[in-house]
Amino acid sequence: MTIDTDAKDGYVKTEVHNNILIIEFYHPQSNSLPSPLIASLVHEIDSAARNIDIHVIVLRAAGGGAFCAGASFDELLTIEDEQQGAQFFNGFASIINAMRKCPKLIVARVHGKCVGGGVGLAAAADYTIALEGADVKLSELSIGIGPLVIGPAVERKIGLSAYSELAIDSTAWRSSDWAKRKGLYAGLHPTPESMDEAIARLTSALAHTSPEAAAEMKKVFWHDTDHWDMLLQERAAISGKLVLSSYTKECLRKFKEKKL
Amino acid sequence: MTIDTDAKDGYVKTEVHNNILIIEFYHPQSNSLPSPLIASLVHEIDSAARNIDIHVIVLRAAGGGAFCAGASFDELLTIEDEQQGAQFFNGFASIINAMRKCPKLIVARVHGKCVGGGVGLAAAADYTIALEGADVKLSELSIGIGPLVIGPAVERKIGLSAYSELAIDSTAWRSSDWAKRKGLYAGLHPTPESMDEAIARLTSALAHTSPEAAAEMKKVFWHDTDHWDMLLQERAAISGKLVLSSYTKECLRKFKEKKL
Amino acid sequence: MTIDTDAKDGYVKTEVHNNILIIEFYHPQSNSLPSPLIASLVHEIDSAARNIDIHVIVLRAAGGGAFCAGASFDELLTIEDEQQGAQFFNGFASIINAMRKCPKLIVARVHGKCVGGGVGLAAAADYTIALEGADVKLSELSIGIGPLVIGPAVERKIGLSAYSELAIDSTAWRSSDWAKRKGLYAGLHPTPESMDEAIARLTSALAHTSPEAAAEMKKVFWHDTDHWDMLLQERAAISGKLVLSSYTKECLRKFKEKKL
Repeated sequence: MTIDTDAKDGYVKTEVHNNILIIEFYHPQSNSLPSPLIASLVHEIDSAARNIDIHVIVLRAAGGGAFCAGASFDELLTIEDEQQGAQFFNGFASIINAMRKCPKLIVARVHGKCVGGGVGLAAAADYTIALEGADVKLSELSIGIGPLVIGPAVERKIGLSAYSELAIDSTAWRSSDWAKRKGLYAGLHPTPESMDEAIARLTSALAHTSPEAAAEMKKVFWHDTDHWDMLLQERAAISGKLVLSSYTKECLRKFKEKKL
Repeated sequence: MTIDTDAKDGYVKTEVHNNILIIEFYHPQSNSLPSPLIASLVHEIDSAARNIDIHVIVLRAAGGGAFCAGASFDELLTIEDEQQGAQFFNGFASIINAMRKCPKLIVARVHGKCVGGGVGLAAAADYTIALEGADVKLSELSIGIGPLVIGPAVERKIGLSAYSELAIDSTAWRSSDWAKRKGLYAGLHPTPESMDEAIARLTSALAHTSPEAAAEMKKVFWHDTDHWDMLLQERAAISGKLVLSSYTKECLRKFKEKKL
Repeated sequence: MTIDTDAKDGYVKTEVHNNILIIEFYHPQSNSLPSPLIASLVHEIDSAARNIDIHVIVLRAAGGGAFCAGASFDELLTIEDEQQGAQFFNGFASIINAMRKCPKLIVARVHGKCVGGGVGLAAAADYTIALEGADVKLSELSIGIGPLVIGPAVERKIGLSAYSELAIDSTAWRSSDWAKRKGLYAGLHPTPESMDEAIARLTSALAHTSPEAAAEMKKVFWHDTDHWDMLLQERAAISGKLVLSSYTKECLRKFKEKKL
C-alpha cells in the first residue's frame, strides 16, 4: 500500500491479502477524522462484516506522525446548535459501534500518538499493537467537553481508574508504556519493523483459524455491550450540549484567533 | 491552613481559595474517624455539592503520620447489638455515598498509610495523589469482620483481584507503589512538595474548566452505582452482625486488655 | 502427602490439617483433567462446602511439571456430536461453579505452567500463589475453538484486556510475571520453599479467622455471578459445536496422526 500523503482531504484505503483486510486512513491534520473519513471507515468495517473472504481486519493510519488526533477540530468550530453538536460527536460513536459489532477480530496498528477519539479507536480494536512513543491523551475536559462517547470503550479496556486518570488530568500525556501496562496496548515495539512482524505473525494465525470460533470469541469479548448503540448516542448528545457552553465557546474563539 | 493537632477529639476544617474547597480532617488516633468527624465530613461534602462557587474539592488529612486508620476502634469496642453494629459501619457508607453523589470532582491527598476505611476514602475520590510510603492494608478479616462497606469503592478502582488480595491477606501491607500500579493512586510522589505541586496544578486546571463538563464526567465515572445507597447499607448490616461473633468478641477482649 | 506419580489414570487426594483441606490432583499427561478427575475435584469441593471443620481449602497439583494442561485432549478426540461436545466442555464449568459456590476461601498453589482450563482453575481460586515460571497460555483459538467456558472466570480476575490478549494470541506464552501483574497470581515466588511458606502463613491465618466472616467475604468476591450456572453451560454448548467444525476436525486429525 503506497502512502498517499498528498491527499488534502485525507483518505481511507483498503487492501486484502490472504483473507486479511487492511484499512488505512490518513488526514493531513495529524490523522484527525472529519465526517467523510468517519463514514468511509464505518462503510469499510460494515462491508468486511458481511464478507466471508475476510477473516481478520488490520486498522492502521498513514504517515509518520500521530496515529489519530481524534475528531476534526475544523468541524468542531462550525457547530452552532445541539443538533449539529450531537451529529458531530456521533462520528466516533458510529465507528466504535461498527468495530464492536463486526464479527471479525480487529487488530489496530498504532504507530504514533493518540488523542481523544484516537484513544477510542485504539481501545475499540480487539488487539492493539503499538510503537514505543505512541503516547495517549484525553484533552477534552481542558476545552470544557469530556471524553464521553469513547468513555465506555476506553474504560472497558483500561478500567475505571486509568480512564478517569486520563480524563481528569486532561493536559498531560501518558506514555506508551503506561498504555501497555493499563491494557490499551497488547504489544509495544521499539521499531516499526518489529511491530509489523508481530502484526504479520498474529494476523496470519488469525486468518488461518476457524472464522466461526473467531466470531464466537468476538461476541464474548463484547458481552453486555448491546446497549452501546443507545449509550454512545446519549453521550454524543451530552457532548453536543457541552460544546455550546460559554466556557467552550471562549476556548474555541481563542483557538480560531490563533489559527488566523 | 494551620494544623491544629492539639484537638483531642479531632476536627474537620475547610478553606476555599479560587473555587477550590480544601477539606482537612484530623484525629489524634492515626486520623481514624469517630462518628462526629464522619458526620462533619459528610456535611462539608454535601454543602459543597450545592455551592456553585466550589468547582473542585481536595480531601486531605492533617499530621505527618497515617492518612487515615479507618473507623474508630474505640467506638467499635462499644457495640452491643446488631443495630449499633449497623450504625457504626454505616459511617463509611455515608462518606462514600456523599463523595459519589457530589457533582464536583474530588482529589484526595494521601500523605501516609491507609487502613480499612482509609483505603475506602482513597478509593472513593475521583483522583488520588499520594506520597511514597502511603502503604495500604485491609485488616478487617484478621479480627473476624470484613472490608464489606468499602468493598464496592475499592473494587471499582483497583479491580476484583487486587481487592480480594488485600482483603484475604489481611495482615500484610501492600506498598504505595503497588497501590499506584493497581490504580488506587493516580500519582505517587517522592516528596510532599512535589505531591502538593501536582495537586495545585491539577486542581487549578479543574477549577478553571467548565463545571457542567466536570459534572457530566463525574456522572460518567460513577455510572451504574445508583444502587450503592442500598448496597452499602446492606454491607453495613452484615458487618454489624459479624462484629458480634464470638471470634470478634474474643479479639476485642484481648485488644481491650492490652489497652488498659 | 506422598506424590503418587505412578497412577496411570491420575488421582485426586485430600488431607485435612488444622481446619485446612488440601486437595491435590495428578495426571501423567501434564496434569490435564479427564472427566473422572473433574468429577472427583467437584465432589471434594462440594463436600468441603458442607464440612464445618474445614475453614480454608488449598488446591494443588502433583509433580514438577505443569500445574494443569486443561481438559484432556484424549477425550477431546472422541467427541462425535454436539451433545458429547457440550458434556466435555461442561467439565471445567462444573469445577469453576463448584469453586465459586463453595463458602470457603480457596487458595491455589500453582507450581508450574497453566494452559486453557488450567488458567481457569488458577483464576477461579480466591487467592493464587505461584512459582516463577508458571507461565500461562490460552491455546484454544489455534485449534478452532475458544477459551469460552473459563472466559468469565479469567476475565473476572485479569480484566477484559488481558483475557482477550491471551485468547487472541493463542500460540504465545505469557510469563508468570505478566500473570502476577495482571492479577491472576496474588503472590509469585522464586522457590517452592518460599511459595509453600507463604501458603502456610496465609492458610493458617485464614483457618483461625471467623468462618462467618470468610463466608461473607466469599459472597462479596463472587457478587453478581449467580448466572454463571447457566452462562458456563451455554459457553460449553457453543464450544461443543465449534469442536465439530471442519477446521477443528482437521487439526485433531493431524494431532491423532502425530500421536500414532
